[in-house]
Amino acid sequence: MALTPVLSRIDTSFDDSLKRLFDFIRIPSISTDPAHAADCARGAEWLAGELSALGFDASVRPTAGHPMVVAHWTKAGPDKPHVLFYAHYDVQPVDPLHLWETPPFEPRLAEGPDGSRRIVGRGAADDKGQLLTFVEAARALIAETGGLPINVTILSEGEEESGSPSLLPFLEANRAELSHDVALVCDTNMWDRQTPAITTMLRGLVGEEVTIHAADQDLHSGMFGGPALNPIHVLARILAGLHDDAGRVTLPGFYDGVPEIPDDIRRNWDGLGFDGDAFLASVGLTAPAGEAGRTVLEKIWARPTAEVNGISGGYAGDGFKTVLPAKASAKVSFRLVGDQDPVAIRAAFRAYVTERLPAGARVEFHPHGGSPAIRLSFDNPALAKGAAALQAEWGKPTAIIGGGGSIPVVGLFKSLLGMDSLMVGFGLSDDRIHSPNEKYDVTSYHKGIRSWARIIDALAG
Amino acid sequence: MALTPVLSRIDTSFDDSLKRLFDFIRIPSISTDPAHAADCARGAEWLAGELSALGFDASVRPTAGHPMVVAHWTKAGPDKPHVLFYAHYDVQPVDPLHLWETPPFEPRLAEGPDGSRRIVGRGAADDKGQLLTFVEAARALIAETGGLPINVTILSEGEEESGSPSLLPFLEANRAELSHDVALVCDTNMWDRQTPAITTMLRGLVGEEVTIHAADQDLHSGMFGGPALNPIHVLARILAGLHDDAGRVTLPGFYDGVPEIPDDIRRNWDGLGFDGDAFLASVGLTAPAGEAGRTVLEKIWARPTAEVNGISGGYAGDGFKTVLPAKASAKVSFRLVGDQDPVAIRAAFRAYVTERLPAGARVEFHPHGGSPAIRLSFDNPALAKGAAALQAEWGKPTAIIGGGGSIPVVGLFKSLLGMDSLMVGFGLSDDRIHSPNEKYDVTSYHKGIRSWARIIDALAG
Repeated sequence: MALTPVLSRIDTSFDDSLKRLFDFIRIPSISTDPAHAADCARGAEWLAGELSALGFDASVRPTAGHPMVVAHWTKAGPDKPHVLFYAHYDVQPVDPLHLWETPPFEPRLAEGPDGSRRIVGRGAADDKGQLLTFVEAARALIAETGGLPINVTILSEGEEESGSPSLLPFLEANRAELSHDVALVCDTNMWDRQTPAITTMLRGLVGEEVTIHAADQDLHSGMFGGPALNPIHVLARILAGLHDDAGRVTLPGFYDGVPEIPDDIRRNWDGLGFDGDAFLASVGLTAPAGEAGRTVLEKIWARPTAEVNGISGGYAGDGFKTVLPAKASAKVSFRLVGDQDPVAIRAAFRAYVTERLPAGARVEFHPHGGSPAIRLSFDNPALAKGAAALQAEWGKPTAIIGGGGSIPVVGLFKSLLGMDSLMVGFGLSDDRIHSPNEKYDVTSYHKGIRSWARIIDALAG
Repeated sequence: MALTPVLSRIDTSFDDSLKRLFDFIRIPSISTDPAHAADCARGAEWLAGELSALGFDASVRPTAGHPMVVAHWTKAGPDKPHVLFYAHYDVQPVDPLHLWETPPFEPRLAEGPDGSRRIVGRGAADDKGQLLTFVEAARALIAETGGLPINVTILSEGEEESGSPSLLPFLEANRAELSHDVALVCDTNMWDRQTPAITTMLRGLVGEEVTIHAADQDLHSGMFGGPALNPIHVLARILAGLHDDAGRVTLPGFYDGVPEIPDDIRRNWDGLGFDGDAFLASVGLTAPAGEAGRTVLEKIWARPTAEVNGISGGYAGDGFKTVLPAKASAKVSFRLVGDQDPVAIRAAFRAYVTERLPAGARVEFHPHGGSPAIRLSFDNPALAKGAAALQAEWGKPTAIIGGGGSIPVVGLFKSLLGMDSLMVGFGLSDDRIHSPNEKYDVTSYHKGIRSWARIIDALAG
């Protein structure tokens, strides 16, 4: 397919694309505020209307909460790939309103400190601008070539900013309709202003609360100190033993399923020019911790962790009380990568703790969620095609990056629909999403549309 | 001196002794309640009046709070020992009043479950009954023999139940007047209903709060987990290293000045029939902790400890937050015995922590008090004399016991007046001091008076 006329059409009709984004932003679809339920419905109707007008088989689908928009383009034919595109049409609340320079739902163009142009308004970046990059790319392809070269299902939810309560049941109820070759998820950032990125890895998470019990009441340390078991001591010894001197987690089998990074990905990361020391220094950290012999990026994106997120026991108020507490607790979480099994990790931790209990101590466990890591296989062809398409648009190699945290929808696509996700987005770290004066760079929007046209074309090949 | 007539007089005039204790209890000298300030003053006046009538040079001495009673008997002559007797005339509040079977300041005789007779009322045991055991013994000695065989200064404060704010300045201001050969402190218990006790050891205490700092803000564990130093981990490793596998404290020099118990004291303790397992089981503990190879009694009375009394860091509320906290804190205390130096122990702990700080961690210390252990030297002749006198009265060997906690006045006598204390008391563990229906056994009072007569006589020899 000749892309040049498609890209030219995107350029020449960009003012219309901007106008549509402004229309979309004007709908205050704040999902967490019941007072805006009708606005959320209006947002869904607006989007479905646009997609219907393009020729999609689009519908607004009710849920127990805000509706889903589902739109299908299947005219590419059964021999072509079928992708699921996901973005959300709801937005964050606007408080504190007085910090907005202009009303949040009256979008405007403004100039950034470096002279760049930006679209200002709630949802400009998160996620209405990102959503429309794909819709506008489809529009240009359809207008210029008469259709899309691949089959596309668009899924847009209106509850992403309020915990996505309807997403799981909706995916379960519509498994066949929504399960396709790969998901394209547009809710992430570029690596930097010049460098496109595909996020391929998100760490999983296992949370576990452990409570060590000793006496059946708090004791006075003068009366009982010495022969009475102190559960804080037991807990400290257990937690201290979770890592060896090289920073590795000591649980047996913990590193089962943890892959080493392929050399080409490692070279890609080395080429990003990421300054680990500066990253840590930005939050006041003067030295790296964790596993010896691993870079900061590798530790965040590709290595598992065991972290104590909270600890409590005894008296922690002002002053001093010489109490020997009856119990002590810690909240422990494990970030998982690769094929680490959340069930096995939780079991290994519980066994580790139980084996280390001294006589007279008792342990209680409370699970707090568990999900495996997400990763797009490095040899998935969609990754190479998407990366090449982005590089063609931006003129720089695409960063193949990871993320330290999780994006729930991507996990559900994998676990419920058996579908990997290509996470591509054009947000920037200064977009102030969730904050007053949220913005989306005009370049992000414009070149984002061009990027999706290129990716859609590449996936057809 | 012939004691028999003195003891007979105590027996025959016991009803009068009881009547005086009832009069004393009727004065509601609640020190912590400003509404009872006049009652406290009245309590002091009553006591000084009784002592003056006996021939003491007694006075009520004003302080910034409730007054002190000081009374001297120096007619034994300069070649005789001079002791300082201490007990307090103030009492605890009576709340909750509705749980009292009879009004707290209307003392009465009642019968215990085992048929024993008891004096019921606020302050009966703590400390008015104990105080009068000594005064009534002096009364009998003076009445029967014309005087006391030793020189005696009586010091009674009215703020013991409200933190003794005036005690330190009063002792400092009257050092010469109050410093004598040994202090007799009557505010402790018998070992059991049949066995008299002298408390000779009270552990000292060093309190220290340690805070480990890492990042300058709380971090998200998805974003930073791995390369970011977690101060809870640092703290856990430090605290875990405070004890070795045999339960000994690892601080260099920690056991300097910790004496081994002499064989005769060890035999005395073995003879007490103390059931360490039952003691621990009473608070739900199923196994002893602490130093290997030491008995429960030894651990509480004669061995030092390092205990974490409180720990905090990160999120400790309901549910789970994957935070990497900026800091984590622990409150650590050391119980000291023998000649352990609080200053050296604090310094050793700080050095230990500082040496174990990994790169990028910072530590902050806050001291929370420090006092050395109190101990009456096992070869102090007053101990042997007092023990023999008590054995003669009760017909059982005197228990030479320790206490796990501290009694501030005893520490002040040592540090300000350079005076050891013989702690002798006739309270029982079921006296319900500080609680409704406080009682003092008639036997405690009667044989307590006889005991002091014997001890005073013995100290003269």
